[in-house]
Amino acid sequence: MLILGLDPGSSCTGYGLIEIDAGRLRSLSFGTIIPPRGLPFLQRLPHVALVLRDLVKHTTPDAIAAEDIFLSRNARTALLLGQIRGAALLPLLEAGLPVHEYAPRLVRKTVTGYGGADKEQVRRMVRLLLGLHDRVLALDASDALAVAICHAHSGLGAATRAAGA
Amino acid sequence: MLILGLDPGSSCTGYGLIEIDAGRLRSLSFGTIIPPRGLPFLQRLPHVALVLRDLVKHTTPDAIAAEDIFLSRNARTALLLGQIRGAALLPLLEAGLPVHEYAPRLVRKTVTGYGGADKEQVRRMVRLLLGLHDRVLALDASDALAVAICHAHSGLGAATRAAGA
Repeated sequence: MLILGLDPGSSCTGYGLIEIDAGRLRSLSFGTIIPPRGLPFLQRLPHVALVLRDLVKHTTPDAIAAEDIFLSRNARTALLLGQIRGAALLPLLEAGLPVHEYAPRLVRKTVTGYGGADKEQVRRMVRLLLGLHDRVLALDASDALAVAICHAHSGLGAATRAAGA
Repeated sequence: MLILGLDPGSSCTGYGLIEIDAGRLRSLSFGTIIPPRGLPFLQRLPHVALVLRDLVKHTTPDAIAAEDIFLSRNARTALLLGQIRGAALLPLLEAGLPVHEYAPRLVRKTVTGYGGADKEQVRRMVRLLLGLHDRVLALDASDALAVAICHAHSGLGAATRAAGA
């Protein structure tokens, strides 16, 4: 089973594709979608969508996992973030992929054992769990891999893994 | 010149298509996109996108006008609204249509002469300006027509109108 984790942000969007194979997790690809410098905000929407549509076409994930963001951001920031999130998820929903949302606290707790862990602690555990010790791993990509891992550990990920085993 | 006005909302999205013909404004179509009752929030994204993609395909507008929303909503509401807005604008941006954003206050001022006007006052003036006296006009559709009118009265709308005359 392939799970694409997403961490959409108003300035850049992290993604991470993992595979569950016989109960083991493996990272297939990860990265950060950064719009070209100076691109007007609205034009970032088709940019993110294009990259993700292409990624999904070439990697054919079985499910999408995204953080269900409701942290204390101000309304203006949330509106910008929401637009990127909508544009990032739309091509995936249109491709008929199931999108699962996880609360940030649950993601951190699943990966590190502690819901209050910071991004650096999450990255350390993501490296460990996926064997990415010597790889450059941006925090956005690490967060995306973390939510994919969270889905893998959820009932849904496990069920599909069992069915596919 | 055809202008499609949009008023994306987390529960429903108003739209209104107007034509500028020899300096006169005419309403071609308007309405409200209401997702089927009980549709999970994320599934509203492809629903709105599908309707708008279809609308644009059949009506071929020259430009999109949307309110640039930054009103005092809480972050959670803004995030939901943002996602719908992103999903609504994405197919239009991908179709290469120019999207113009107008502050709500400017829209109200352009249509009614008063930036503090309420939605009912806006609707009354939209009816008057477009000759929609006896038509049922929902507030979301009225707001969408208002932002299209605002674009028509902007330099951009006027310039294009002059060029097309």
